[in-house]
Amino acid sequence: MDRRTFLSGATIATAAAATACSQETPGDVAAPAVNRRRTRRLRMVTTWPANFPGLGTAADTTARLIGEMSGGELEVQVYGAGEIVGAFEVFDAVSNGVADMYHAAEYYWQGRSPAYNFYCAVPMGLTATEIMAWVEFGGGQELWDELSAQFNIKPFQAGNTGHQMGGWFKREINALSDFRGLRVRMPGLGGDVIRALGGAAVALSGGEIYQALQSGAIDATEWVGPWNDLAFGFYREAPYYYGPGFHEPGSALAIGVNLGVWESLPAQHQAIVRAACRAANNQSIAEFTHHNGIALQTLIEDHGVQLRNFSDEIWREVGRVSEEVVANAANADAMSRRVYNSYVQSRRRSREWANVSETPYLQMRELVLGG
Amino acid sequence: MDRRTFLSGATIATAAAATACSQETPGDVAAPAVNRRRTRRLRMVTTWPANFPGLGTAADTTARLIGEMSGGELEVQVYGAGEIVGAFEVFDAVSNGVADMYHAAEYYWQGRSPAYNFYCAVPMGLTATEIMAWVEFGGGQELWDELSAQFNIKPFQAGNTGHQMGGWFKREINALSDFRGLRVRMPGLGGDVIRALGGAAVALSGGEIYQALQSGAIDATEWVGPWNDLAFGFYREAPYYYGPGFHEPGSALAIGVNLGVWESLPAQHQAIVRAACRAANNQSIAEFTHHNGIALQTLIEDHGVQLRNFSDEIWREVGRVSEEVVANAANADAMSRRVYNSYVQSRRRSREWANVSETPYLQMRELVLGG
Repeated sequence: MDRRTFLSGATIATAAAATACSQETPGDVAAPAVNRRRTRRLRMVTTWPANFPGLGTAADTTARLIGEMSGGELEVQVYGAGEIVGAFEVFDAVSNGVADMYHAAEYYWQGRSPAYNFYCAVPMGLTATEIMAWVEFGGGQELWDELSAQFNIKPFQAGNTGHQMGGWFKREINALSDFRGLRVRMPGLGGDVIRALGGAAVALSGGEIYQALQSGAIDATEWVGPWNDLAFGFYREAPYYYGPGFHEPGSALAIGVNLGVWESLPAQHQAIVRAACRAANNQSIAEFTHHNGIALQTLIEDHGVQLRNFSDEIWREVGRVSEEVVANAANADAMSRRVYNSYVQSRRRSREWANVSETPYLQMRELVLGG
Repeated sequence: MDRRTFLSGATIATAAAATACSQETPGDVAAPAVNRRRTRRLRMVTTWPANFPGLGTAADTTARLIGEMSGGELEVQVYGAGEIVGAFEVFDAVSNGVADMYHAAEYYWQGRSPAYNFYCAVPMGLTATEIMAWVEFGGGQELWDELSAQFNIKPFQAGNTGHQMGGWFKREINALSDFRGLRVRMPGLGGDVIRALGGAAVALSGGEIYQALQSGAIDATEWVGPWNDLAFGFYREAPYYYGPGFHEPGSALAIGVNLGVWESLPAQHQAIVRAACRAANNQSIAEFTHHNGIALQTLIEDHGVQLRNFSDEIWREVGRVSEEVVANAANADAMSRRVYNSYVQSRRRSREWANVSETPYLQMRELVLGG
């Protein structure tokens, strides 16, 4: 994913800034007094096309849960990218009160502060369950609240793609030198790593990638994972599917609520919004895990896709450069440095735990069941 | 964990069966009519001591969220094991309407049907995110609904311990022959595997383990993971800490609601209960990941605990026997066989996905950042 991916019309519909919130009673005048509730309408702008699988689904799930759990007292209307504001104007729209909340990937706001990268994904960073541990229990949420309060926003985790793949390559990558001159579509800090290896990181929106691969304008592309990649048909132009990606090991999605709107909500509605985000996060991880498994089988069995992993030599150098790129990015401001320090401390603990649990279990399960 | 672990008073307080649900209006007569809500009280019985870290926390979180999100219209009172009914009577209590809901680990009900094992954990089975994928999107929930409807119960996932450790051993385990005659505290299907290897699987409640280790009545014990194990101080009696466990690779916790109570809830309250369980599941995974990381550091740095992993030879045989034990258990009834088939199909997909994502990413991250 990247900033420009879903940019489908950058016009800010300023007229739409009017009455983002209204109060009314339902039309059924025969209802007993105890059941008469006010409806507060909230507008959610997103960086995804409406109903986009996985990413848009997490936005829709959150909105639906808020409506159902509040018995219609809160009604969240979801707008796809470009419907009210362009994909990458959602942050400003919520900050300024043009919209009430956004659903997005926080690394899109790295221009405001590099600290935002850590609330989505950074190269060699935390996996899905690890970033949940950091944000919910390791001090991440408190720093995030402080960071986003500067922009008049209250943030929550609300979705996670799980591991993203390394990408689709026209030729095999056998040595570090194969990156030299290679034109790879890869966004953000991952793109900076590609550049440091002598390649060219190219920015292309989702809809532009296929043709760029076909025409030879690019040699490789990353997108998300098997579920979303299959839909674009990249396997027809670039047969080698490298995984996992070093750049996004569990990309968190987020809800940002206008701080004034958040503070105006009664405690019950705050509890509903907070839990809706966490429930949507839970469902999102389950949904990506399930659909990636199915899509991977389809890619291999029906389309003959050839899976590849980068060599240890490549990983060592990609990892070394990644650590430098991320640490340098965190030097940009004091807030980013504090977030980085907290993140890295949590990563150290999660690594030690993974080393005696997840990693050897998955290896040994495969030793037993594989082949 | 096992069936007897928390058994702290088996008397069914049948008197407590009375009026599990009452309706009333809050005392504040000055409140406007629109804010006057009825309170419905629901009683949650659990297999854990009140407020037990991690396990009890997940029950408490679910109950608190239901109360907060319903604005007090639903009020869930949590009872620890033995307070209304004994730990392992909670299933019958909810089935019979003595209580409204339980929070427990479903494998405690394997006596009703071996199918229940798959909704908590089985040897060589699914990890935390994988079981979420299977239950939420892979057909697991539909089969679970069918299974539990036979007992008048509507089930939900509501917590997950993540990986459990292999256990604390007084002596190192270097060969399969070391299991012969070894007295290991291990419950359920994992215990059956120990027996098949020539060892003795011993059933002991949590409070009995330490003394049994000290007196030499047992040679080894599993419990949960670093967070819960540290509190019991097993490291003082059995210095070798083996991980990960083959027997519980991501134990799901569950809420079971009396089916009549569930069906009597209006749609809004059903949505609240369902989302509260999912939000609690999300928080539970984050909480265990965070605290296991911290406790592992404490065990190693402050208590000099020596970490060990079973050899490949041991894993191969343990895995082979595990597959037999689980498949045999699933032959007990038609429902178990259907659940098993669905579970194994989902495991196949999740394994393929883990093989190109989680497993190699964690290995390569360690190659870069480790030692």
